[in-house]
Amino acid sequence: MIIILKSDATAAQRDQLIAHIEQLGLKAHLSEGTFRTILGVIGDESLISADQLRATPGVSDVVPVLPSYKLASREAHPQPSIVDVKGAKFGGGHISFIAGPCAVEDHSRMQAIAAAVKAAGAHVFRGGAYKPRTSPYSFQGMGLEGLKVLRAVGDEFDMPVVSEVTDPRHLDQLVEHVDMLQVGARNMQNFALLAEVGRTSTPVLMKRGMSATLTDLLMCAEYVLAHGNPNVVLCERGIKSFDTATRNLFDVAAVPAIHELSHLPIIVDPSHATGRPDLIPPCALAGIAAGADGVHIEVHDCPAEARSDGPQALLPEQYAELAEAMRSMATLVKKQFPEHEKEI
Amino acid sequence: MIIILKSDATAAQRDQLIAHIEQLGLKAHLSEGTFRTILGVIGDESLISADQLRATPGVSDVVPVLPSYKLASREAHPQPSIVDVKGAKFGGGHISFIAGPCAVEDHSRMQAIAAAVKAAGAHVFRGGAYKPRTSPYSFQGMGLEGLKVLRAVGDEFDMPVVSEVTDPRHLDQLVEHVDMLQVGARNMQNFALLAEVGRTSTPVLMKRGMSATLTDLLMCAEYVLAHGNPNVVLCERGIKSFDTATRNLFDVAAVPAIHELSHLPIIVDPSHATGRPDLIPPCALAGIAAGADGVHIEVHDCPAEARSDGPQALLPEQYAELAEAMRSMATLVKKQFPEHEKEI
Amino acid sequence: MIIILKSDATAAQRDQLIAHIEQLGLKAHLSEGTFRTILGVIGDESLISADQLRATPGVSDVVPVLPSYKLASREAHPQPSIVDVKGAKFGGGHISFIAGPCAVEDHSRMQAIAAAVKAAGAHVFRGGAYKPRTSPYSFQGMGLEGLKVLRAVGDEFDMPVVSEVTDPRHLDQLVEHVDMLQVGARNMQNFALLAEVGRTSTPVLMKRGMSATLTDLLMCAEYVLAHGNPNVVLCERGIKSFDTATRNLFDVAAVPAIHELSHLPIIVDPSHATGRPDLIPPCALAGIAAGADGVHIEVHDCPAEARSDGPQALLPEQYAELAEAMRSMATLVKKQFPEHEKEI
Amino acid sequence: MIIILKSDATAAQRDQLIAHIEQLGLKAHLSEGTFRTILGVIGDESLISADQLRATPGVSDVVPVLPSYKLASREAHPQPSIVDVKGAKFGGGHISFIAGPCAVEDHSRMQAIAAAVKAAGAHVFRGGAYKPRTSPYSFQGMGLEGLKVLRAVGDEFDMPVVSEVTDPRHLDQLVEHVDMLQVGARNMQNFALLAEVGRTSTPVLMKRGMSATLTDLLMCAEYVLAHGNPNVVLCERGIKSFDTATRNLFDVAAVPAIHELSHLPIIVDPSHATGRPDLIPPCALAGIAAGADGVHIEVHDCPAEARSDGPQALLPEQYAELAEAMRSMATLVKKQFPEHEKEI
Repeated sequence: MIIILKSDATAAQRDQLIAHIEQLGLKAHLSEGTFRTILGVIGDESLISADQLRATPGVSDVVPVLPSYKLASREAHPQPSIVDVKGAKFGGGHISFIAGPCAVEDHSRMQAIAAAVKAAGAHVFRGGAYKPRTSPYSFQGMGLEGLKVLRAVGDEFDMPVVSEVTDPRHLDQLVEHVDMLQVGARNMQNFALLAEVGRTSTPVLMKRGMSATLTDLLMCAEYVLAHGNPNVVLCERGIKSFDTATRNLFDVAAVPAIHELSHLPIIVDPSHATGRPDLIPPCALAGIAAGADGVHIEVHDCPAEARSDGPQALLPEQYAELAEAMRSMATLVKKQFPEHEKEI
Repeated sequence: MIIILKSDATAAQRDQLIAHIEQLGLKAHLSEGTFRTILGVIGDESLISADQLRATPGVSDVVPVLPSYKLASREAHPQPSIVDVKGAKFGGGHISFIAGPCAVEDHSRMQAIAAAVKAAGAHVFRGGAYKPRTSPYSFQGMGLEGLKVLRAVGDEFDMPVVSEVTDPRHLDQLVEHVDMLQVGARNMQNFALLAEVGRTSTPVLMKRGMSATLTDLLMCAEYVLAHGNPNVVLCERGIKSFDTATRNLFDVAAVPAIHELSHLPIIVDPSHATGRPDLIPPCALAGIAAGADGVHIEVHDCPAEARSDGPQALLPEQYAELAEAMRSMATLVKKQFPEHEKEI
Repeated sequence: MIIILKSDATAAQRDQLIAHIEQLGLKAHLSEGTFRTILGVIGDESLISADQLRATPGVSDVVPVLPSYKLASREAHPQPSIVDVKGAKFGGGHISFIAGPCAVEDHSRMQAIAAAVKAAGAHVFRGGAYKPRTSPYSFQGMGLEGLKVLRAVGDEFDMPVVSEVTDPRHLDQLVEHVDMLQVGARNMQNFALLAEVGRTSTPVLMKRGMSATLTDLLMCAEYVLAHGNPNVVLCERGIKSFDTATRNLFDVAAVPAIHELSHLPIIVDPSHATGRPDLIPPCALAGIAAGADGVHIEVHDCPAEARSDGPQALLPEQYAELAEAMRSMATLVKKQFPEHEKEI
Repeated sequence: MIIILKSDATAAQRDQLIAHIEQLGLKAHLSEGTFRTILGVIGDESLISADQLRATPGVSDVVPVLPSYKLASREAHPQPSIVDVKGAKFGGGHISFIAGPCAVEDHSRMQAIAAAVKAAGAHVFRGGAYKPRTSPYSFQGMGLEGLKVLRAVGDEFDMPVVSEVTDPRHLDQLVEHVDMLQVGARNMQNFALLAEVGRTSTPVLMKRGMSATLTDLLMCAEYVLAHGNPNVVLCERGIKSFDTATRNLFDVAAVPAIHELSHLPIIVDPSHATGRPDLIPPCALAGIAAGADGVHIEVHDCPAEARSDGPQALLPEQYAELAEAMRSMATLVKKQFPEHEKEI
């Protein structure tokens, strides 16, 4: 950590700072510049609060040298983590595809969609039972009933299932019925929820918040890791921007940037990132080209009847075509598909 | 609602849309342009899903004419709402000041700060007992113990108190101990929490999310209103921007813009908006000049020892000076202070 | 064009609007909704000013139905345009690679870099002679002398050359020495410059401004087209965002989105988009996967000595490796390389 | 300047860096941390290129300690600058109001508007003769003819005049006819133009670019100052944001933030910042409350007939009412009006 003093900081302020640093068992390294004085803090940065230093008289700025996340960092864990969701692997050269409707709907529709995406080569089946809708008047999901449908259809088609958790009080239900817990973009900084999710051992799909920096995202993963659950898969799903040509702005560079900062796998969700079916295929391929460890896509057999987010869903036949292109792309960038596929 | 058809939409697609609209008991008004065909939907827009229409073959775009929030809208409720927090009034020409430390700390420190802000003219005392911190390693708040301290100090100084709720499981505790529930920026779209808060009758201070549009903010207020709680005070506290000169970007125009869209009061929080003590006074005054119904400011008697967000806190003496300027400004723009002040 | 009236618009205001529309030779199509009245304007939208309508009493909003760019639109020109820069083709299935240093430097260094990028498979050689630097104290480019060096080295290695124009007074020089004129991101809305560039017939590389929407970008292309120069290649080079993890935010979805809106080719510039050498290769590949018609990359043989933007340059050996991967990627998405390559 | 080495930097890389720094006549101060090595550069930072250092092997990051602008900085010039435009003073406690139509129109309309804004208390009359329009098909301004009208009307009403310069080739015309040169937001980083403007001695009104940070803005002012013209007035006119509720986002905190970083005056332009007449008055007042040294507002006597930007113009009677409120507000924050007003 580097502390830059104000140009008018007094010698007394400087000495008080040094004393404070040394009291904490750290060393202060003084560097008197021509225009400014700088203090380097030597030792374990986590013992000292940058916030408190910034509020200390005489301090102009504090520059942390190490990231504030530890367990999520590449430095702490140089090898990439591989998260295994009942055979569907993410990370470390493995790629898996998640597909399904935005919201769980009735059993027969779920069967039809699952059959289609399974045939197309998807590995994990998705569907929301508790839906975080921007309007209180929109369909809020089927709740527990939906989780049961999802579980039944997943079992029928031998696919692991993922569904979103929005409330710590639902966690037991979710853990009982699904193989992967999704933390949605709007709840990425719902720290009470993150702590609870971290107390389970169920793999977590953590979506990046719409205004989250990569550091924000990794700090939220850190919450889950710090509470004991190491199975976190990150997901880039578009961030806010001034251009409304697409619903959100798909930050494809987040994929290699996260791979450099962290050992955790990161997948892409071009459905939410773009909100436009025509842009989903090129963005899905771009994500894989950039190194994504998986692709999450919404598929519905009749978007105009979908109870949530219909306009951004691909039709099963569109998904099948895209999945084939994604497999070629993944092969080009040397990704490995789930084991059992070899038998197909 | 206006439906714009694609330039290559077929007559069959057009007729199917009209039939769909009429089935819902609405009327479709056809307008064949030189380049595009447009359908006006006449009747209650809420009967029809814009999302489903956008996913319908032949549709290029859907333009809603009415806002998607109803209870929060100015059209539904032309007179400004006045939210009364035990005598501190917000809205309809009334202005109140909220002040206190970021986090509740020990009893004697809380007493000292409360005494100072009360003397300076603050009306509501604040302090977080459950803190949503970006790092799992940071101080997470004193919890129930903190709520008790806050309540006791509020009672001692005869000030209503406000504290943040971050988890639906804490709501009973909060409602028992505080006079106003804060929903923080990071939980603005935690819809499970909003629904629960809406089931109480405790006034709510709803902070704008860091990437929330004004429509997003009003939709979240709508959640609380729709669940039965009409006592919502909105709060502009800065949004994300590309410029890191300030922590967030203080959107002062949100104040008059919200006043036009909604009857709900809106206050400003220059502490979080700027993150810099030197910018808090000018931004507080700007907020009042723009019509804010209140000002929320963090005050701490020793920022370098604060357990959370010290660098952005004002010292008691800085707050006293600012409060005086805020009172002159509020008088200039013809705001009314809480009744009991007249007796002081 | 659709005009939405205010809920309190009078019949007189409505009739005056209709009269105004009909005076211009257009038809007004009235649609009285339950809550709002809507006027559809039928005929050539360009005859009427949306701005003036918005300022007209009784008008709540104006929704244009057609894009404001015409010559650049896909509707006006359904087939993709192919821009040919002395054999290097962009668009319509053709892909070309542009490479070279940020700024033109001395002759021998330029020869060394040109030799390297040519060997790696680049088609167009780049170098700035007039540099738009954010600091007046930074190296501002070699000017005319630099253009001469660039031309000589281009001729020596049989590569067309591209360089940036920043001032209408330099245009004659530029046109004389280069095969493609770059309009930089900071000058994208320098309309005086765009008009002059439009009066030449030299192909133009138009970089997207840092806060330009896709509509803004196409309107700037429209300036060049409307002044008579049809040879415009667009370039996505990153836009401003709240996350400083990368210098700018690489908007890869702009590639397919532009392809839908316009017939003009669009290439990607991962060097400026990310500002980090480690992110350039994955983003270059992502751009091609998303359908880019070319890739622009900065290459320098000694970044630590570069007179401008060294840190974001690839070394020649890094570029060679990337170029090979880009060729495989381009082949996978069925792009065609410049003709003469077949002879190599 | 602080150089942070990579965790795997070698001793040889470190020594080479130190040698490089010392060759430039600077001193390197080594600080070996537990996890990272840091080098402090002692001496004149401007002798060394941060960009080149960042591209040097072994370097992880470079943190400049001093701002890159010098002449514009508060450190270089602790007293606020006062820019005098023929008696209308900006800065150092002085406030002036600029008003007029977006574009210069015919003589009689200009007379009517000038008479109205003069009567309301405006000090400087504005009007664009060269208009940077986003569409090549929109009215581009009256050119030289417009400058003559502006000059004549300014003289008639004894008001200094300001008009925008968009092309270095027009500068002689502009300097001859106007008292203040406006550099528009879209040309803020048109460095060729800035250099030319810097070679004149005419006061400059420099508008902040739509995606310019405060540092970007001050670097552009630095261009003008470095070329010899010290008379720069900055202008906050809204920046890009994800919320389209207002045309741009009015960054009122920029006013006090600039006052801290620089001695240059800064005014606000709520017309462009919000694009909505109803939001102009509250934002104008907020700007003054935050310390603005002037207010720029567009006024037109018939917005529905304006040849440019009609919808955002105030009517003369609206301006008169606002001007009165602005005067009260300026008095409250202890600003001083131009001298000659005392005689009124």
